[in-house]
Amino acid sequence: MAKVQRLISIVLRLAAAAAAAAAAIIMVTSHETTSFFGLEMEAKYSYTPSFIFFVVAFAVACVYSLLVVLVRPGSTASRLVLMSDVIIGMVLTGAVAATGALSEVGKNGNTHAGWLPICVQVHEYCNRVMGALIAGFVALVVYFLIIMYSLHELAEPLCSCHY
Amino acid sequence: MAKVQRLISIVLRLAAAAAAAAAAIIMVTSHETTSFFGLEMEAKYSYTPSFIFFVVAFAVACVYSLLVVLVRPGSTASRLVLMSDVIIGMVLTGAVAATGALSEVGKNGNTHAGWLPICVQVHEYCNRVMGALIAGFVALVVYFLIIMYSLHELAEPLCSCHY
Repeated sequence: MAKVQRLISIVLRLAAAAAAAAAAIIMVTSHETTSFFGLEMEAKYSYTPSFIFFVVAFAVACVYSLLVVLVRPGSTASRLVLMSDVIIGMVLTGAVAATGALSEVGKNGNTHAGWLPICVQVHEYCNRVMGALIAGFVALVVYFLIIMYSLHELAEPLCSCHY
Repeated sequence: MAKVQRLISIVLRLAAAAAAAAAAIIMVTSHETTSFFGLEMEAKYSYTPSFIFFVVAFAVACVYSLLVVLVRPGSTASRLVLMSDVIIGMVLTGAVAATGALSEVGKNGNTHAGWLPICVQVHEYCNRVMGALIAGFVALVVYFLIIMYSLHELAEPLCSCHY
């Protein structure tokens, strides 16, 4: 039973690492230059602070996920894993939400603020950001499952010895 | 000892509820109309989807925090509280991050996307959104403390009976 749990944990960690790596890489490589009424327009992730945060958050989550696979169950470090999982889960949520909010403005604009949509001009760039967002969302869902699974596992033995 | 823990938990929940209520109310009441080069400009939270999400998320967090105070420790419902705390924590992180990302664009603009800063024109509105963001951040920090405290409490007896 313990072996099955360990296997599920490793598979979920590797899936999270893969999705997080994909999210960071797709975002870093999102770049497009186009001309608009004779003006050259360049779009890249580093022009938006939230997208830089997205890349850093998912790169850290990828490395963290791979490191946690090496942690021996029952060790002192393993007791801190659930806490750091929750922190990583919250950071990834923040990165996805901030990127999602700005992507929505990029796609639809905001007429009240006078912000025009830019995805008509830099279509390819927007598609890549959307790809990064989807990969990031997958990593976030996997992290959510890891946290819920860990909380469930932690509550089970507690119930049998305390209630 | 159990009474002290219960008291700490209730104080944290009430603090979270108060901060969440403040965040939602300040955001809902943020509204300003100004004229800019003869054009009337109106700014209110409902013009931005992320700000609506912010209000809903913090209103739900406020009601949830008050309801959890009523849950009896050791009951079946109490076992689900930590899981729902983590979900609320993640939702609040998303709301703060999305609102923060858009507020940053509102304040500094984004020259590469051609989005001008609007806070020069609607200064009062921006100040209120910033106030909501600060109150929301306080609620988020309190939720983070609640989750970390609960995880610590959950790990303690487990250590004594399993390691």
